[in-house]
Amino acid sequence: MPAWLRHYQRAQLGGDIGAALVVTLLLVPQALAYALVAGLPPQTGLYASLLPLVLYAFSGGSHAQSVGPMAVTALLVAATLSRLAPLGSSDYLLAAVWLALLSGAMLLAFGLLRLGFLADALSQPVLAGFTAASALLIVVSQLAPLAGFHGGGASLPDIVHGLLAHYHDYQPLALNMGVAALLCLLLARRYLAAWLQHCRLTPAAARALARTAPMLVVLAGLATVSLAQWQTRLPVVGLVPGGLPALQLAPLPSLGLAPLVMPAFFIALINYVQSLSVAQMLAAARNERIDPDRELRALGLCNLGAGLAGGFPVTGGLTRSVVNADAGAQTQLASLLCAALLLLVLTRATALLACLPLSVLAATIIASVLVLVDFSCLRAAWRTDRADAVAFALTFVLVLMLGVDAGIVAGVMVSLSVWLMRSSRPHIAVLGRVPGTEHFRNVLRYQTEALPGVLLLRVDESLFFGNARHVGDSILQLAAARDDQPQLLLVMSAVNRLDMTALTMLARLDDSLAARGICLHLAEVKGPVLDVCQRGGLAARFAGRLHLSTHLALRQLCPADDYHI
Amino acid sequence: MPAWLRHYQRAQLGGDIGAALVVTLLLVPQALAYALVAGLPPQTGLYASLLPLVLYAFSGGSHAQSVGPMAVTALLVAATLSRLAPLGSSDYLLAAVWLALLSGAMLLAFGLLRLGFLADALSQPVLAGFTAASALLIVVSQLAPLAGFHGGGASLPDIVHGLLAHYHDYQPLALNMGVAALLCLLLARRYLAAWLQHCRLTPAAARALARTAPMLVVLAGLATVSLAQWQTRLPVVGLVPGGLPALQLAPLPSLGLAPLVMPAFFIALINYVQSLSVAQMLAAARNERIDPDRELRALGLCNLGAGLAGGFPVTGGLTRSVVNADAGAQTQLASLLCAALLLLVLTRATALLACLPLSVLAATIIASVLVLVDFSCLRAAWRTDRADAVAFALTFVLVLMLGVDAGIVAGVMVSLSVWLMRSSRPHIAVLGRVPGTEHFRNVLRYQTEALPGVLLLRVDESLFFGNARHVGDSILQLAAARDDQPQLLLVMSAVNRLDMTALTMLARLDDSLAARGICLHLAEVKGPVLDVCQRGGLAARFAGRLHLSTHLALRQLCPADDYHI
Repeated sequence: MPAWLRHYQRAQLGGDIGAALVVTLLLVPQALAYALVAGLPPQTGLYASLLPLVLYAFSGGSHAQSVGPMAVTALLVAATLSRLAPLGSSDYLLAAVWLALLSGAMLLAFGLLRLGFLADALSQPVLAGFTAASALLIVVSQLAPLAGFHGGGASLPDIVHGLLAHYHDYQPLALNMGVAALLCLLLARRYLAAWLQHCRLTPAAARALARTAPMLVVLAGLATVSLAQWQTRLPVVGLVPGGLPALQLAPLPSLGLAPLVMPAFFIALINYVQSLSVAQMLAAARNERIDPDRELRALGLCNLGAGLAGGFPVTGGLTRSVVNADAGAQTQLASLLCAALLLLVLTRATALLACLPLSVLAATIIASVLVLVDFSCLRAAWRTDRADAVAFALTFVLVLMLGVDAGIVAGVMVSLSVWLMRSSRPHIAVLGRVPGTEHFRNVLRYQTEALPGVLLLRVDESLFFGNARHVGDSILQLAAARDDQPQLLLVMSAVNRLDMTALTMLARLDDSLAARGICLHLAEVKGPVLDVCQRGGLAARFAGRLHLSTHLALRQLCPADDYHI
Repeated sequence: MPAWLRHYQRAQLGGDIGAALVVTLLLVPQALAYALVAGLPPQTGLYASLLPLVLYAFSGGSHAQSVGPMAVTALLVAATLSRLAPLGSSDYLLAAVWLALLSGAMLLAFGLLRLGFLADALSQPVLAGFTAASALLIVVSQLAPLAGFHGGGASLPDIVHGLLAHYHDYQPLALNMGVAALLCLLLARRYLAAWLQHCRLTPAAARALARTAPMLVVLAGLATVSLAQWQTRLPVVGLVPGGLPALQLAPLPSLGLAPLVMPAFFIALINYVQSLSVAQMLAAARNERIDPDRELRALGLCNLGAGLAGGFPVTGGLTRSVVNADAGAQTQLASLLCAALLLLVLTRATALLACLPLSVLAATIIASVLVLVDFSCLRAAWRTDRADAVAFALTFVLVLMLGVDAGIVAGVMVSLSVWLMRSSRPHIAVLGRVPGTEHFRNVLRYQTEALPGVLLLRVDESLFFGNARHVGDSILQLAAARDDQPQLLLVMSAVNRLDMTALTMLARLDDSLAARGICLHLAEVKGPVLDVCQRGGLAARFAGRLHLSTHLALRQLCPADDYHI
């Protein structure tokens, strides 16, 4: 039994019930809309919502996280599947379900292996660039349904091409309703809360009420079309099959699972990063902590649940979770009640959704992701660190041009590259002795004395695959430039770690130097580094050339009359 | 004019001519074979070979590097295109050509931007795992042509499935010739050099002669089929169109360039890493240095040349470059002569290749990549560093199961993850004062005295996106556990760098601590880190709370009677 249920207090019940009502009203149109973004039948959005709410309530760590279909995830699913199966085919649907199952299994496995650090694979500017570009792609791709025609495409050029090729199919009624809904939503976001406060509501109540604008707009659209009998004059959701989804392991799609594994991994990664950020933000407001590994496991179970019910991948989304918290959610009971309400909708009320116009749904999607097209991070990065700004811009452009699925791979590569670029060129200092002491310092910064016949070098960074090649090359160059020094002493005081690539580099460096008649010595090797050297056979190779301290090494290497204190 | 040409000595000519002859004899069957591995018409392999030899001679830095079609690159092309276009379609061919053009343009751009460090994106165990698995995939995929039937598939399950589905189509004659050729090659590799030495040849001559075994086997196969008129009884290369390729920018494939960009990047990355390793190995033997940025530019030009001539991506390969060096290549003149000989073959001798049996080509491919299925790195890694061993095993399995194109993405992710895992949990020490001094040390290792009301923490790692979240969380936890200390002093002496993600973390940490009534101070911030803080607005936020040294900070924070020396 989770902690929140063991310690449940009656005072929390009011907030949880209120939040459940508000979130359900928001969740139903969002679930339908994001299913359409993913290119799937509308009911799959509802199927994807049901179990995750229950599973997170019992396994997750955040009090107000609301797990379910999300815009960026839906776009990722669409981008992945558009390359693998024809839209509307049964293979497309099965592949979407298996994306949820695979990413769920991966998240669960990562959680059990305690790989919570994976959330740190994306640097902040890369994540911000990815989010802004994905949101922009969603806005542009929703222009077609907003005007009542079919667009399509996974990258900006493709989407624009689709818009230009089909714009003459637009339906005036759909366009009018969509634009009206969009205007209402944008005006409501800007002025409604202030106006409600002006009408003597408390600020909190005004804010919560203003957040219900999307549901009101959706209900208004639904009512208009139903009453005016317009359902044949513009695209609507149509008949959503009622009843509960069967819980079953879907058959494999005919394309097999291999092409789904990498996309599932990146969907899992993005969903985890997004969900963890939301959970940590909500927890920070209550001075609580979130365990990343627990969130991994919870999100894994949620995705397995979504897949077993025939849904697509899900995550904890910012919008719905914030609405949940603002509407008063005190515990995950709110999510359980929300699941119960959704059950009611699925079994009793799907017929009511048939007349919902797609253009109004598109308007709610556009309004909700428009705030994510945010360049403030780029401005901040430009001031602080140009490389981070370049990382943002590069990820942004790559996601727009290549689509969101290749863009996330590119984003991880950009994160990695910026970091590699920075740590691949560590500072290497030539040392000399501070006269009359046992201290050795950079000859460029301090008054030092040279030690005849010995070149003293210090590398100021751990050695690993990212810099081993460069460090090896640099040392070789420095040694080659000073051929009067047959001894090279490498001071390892700043090397905290050593990996296998660096180990191989040191052995090769030793060989290359020996070929030039230079003998390589190591000094001040730290304990953990020495352990690695011993296991890798390097300690045996350097037997007699490993020195406890620079001072002791020099006492042995220098002729007695050159080195005395 | 390149340096080797300016300083050319007549004494070098003999070696260069000999090497050109041997390499051409090796290159022609390899070019045909790797074109077939890539799923392309045989002549594209010859087209891909011609210009790169010339372009590298004038732009590259290695004396014996032989750039052209390579097995792993061909497999990468096949894996990428098998998901994008039907085998044998004109789209498939155009996409292969554009893969060469795109990866060439990328390499050239990276070279001009001096991004040579990209070669370090793959750690050694990941690269070894990738190579071993790719080689195994090639061996298994060549079993079908070895037996004279069509297999297909990009991952191990797919290839095995193809073998099982079609094995009854095997052709006895093809299988017999293939197996005989394979046996000859394996026996020759093991015994031929020793036997030739036994026949009174010098060791060097014996080694060089033994290396010609693949060409002899290919010639024997060709002669057998021609003389016995067997070309209708087993699959042969068939008519290879003669004449020179037209140099032109190919039309775009109908699928557009967007889906080719990421594969082209990974092909460029793998080709660059492979080519640079070969060049550095060859240079090390002559005590020369290789400039990574120059190699990037040279390889970029080579791939642009291959693409313009209608070929697929190329790289500097181990086998052919070593044969080139062993056969006596002194300078890149050997490559120019090899290009001239290839020109002769293309214009005069393609008709001779028609009877070459595919099963013998498959045997040469299997024999040449079999040595790459090498697990010695795994054993070394297991002894040295379990994480590196896991990285090898994971990459190996992922490449086999997902195919080589998804496998290389997975490999980069594994490299990144292992590193992230290690640097995401830096050491954080609680400090106390060494009594009677201005020194502050880890309370767990030294006899120290506590300072009432102040918690002293030191983080032993640069702060960046990979550890910011964890460091922030850990500091918050440590502070929460000691609520009698309203001041927290963070000693930044070991923080060499700070990125934007870490900057945001410090600001959030300050807010969270302030919410708990704890005031955060910073001490011993290094110059470059302070610069970043100033540009990012953090210096203003911490005005009055940035201290030059721990000692000075404590003088200000502690009541005078608690802190005195």
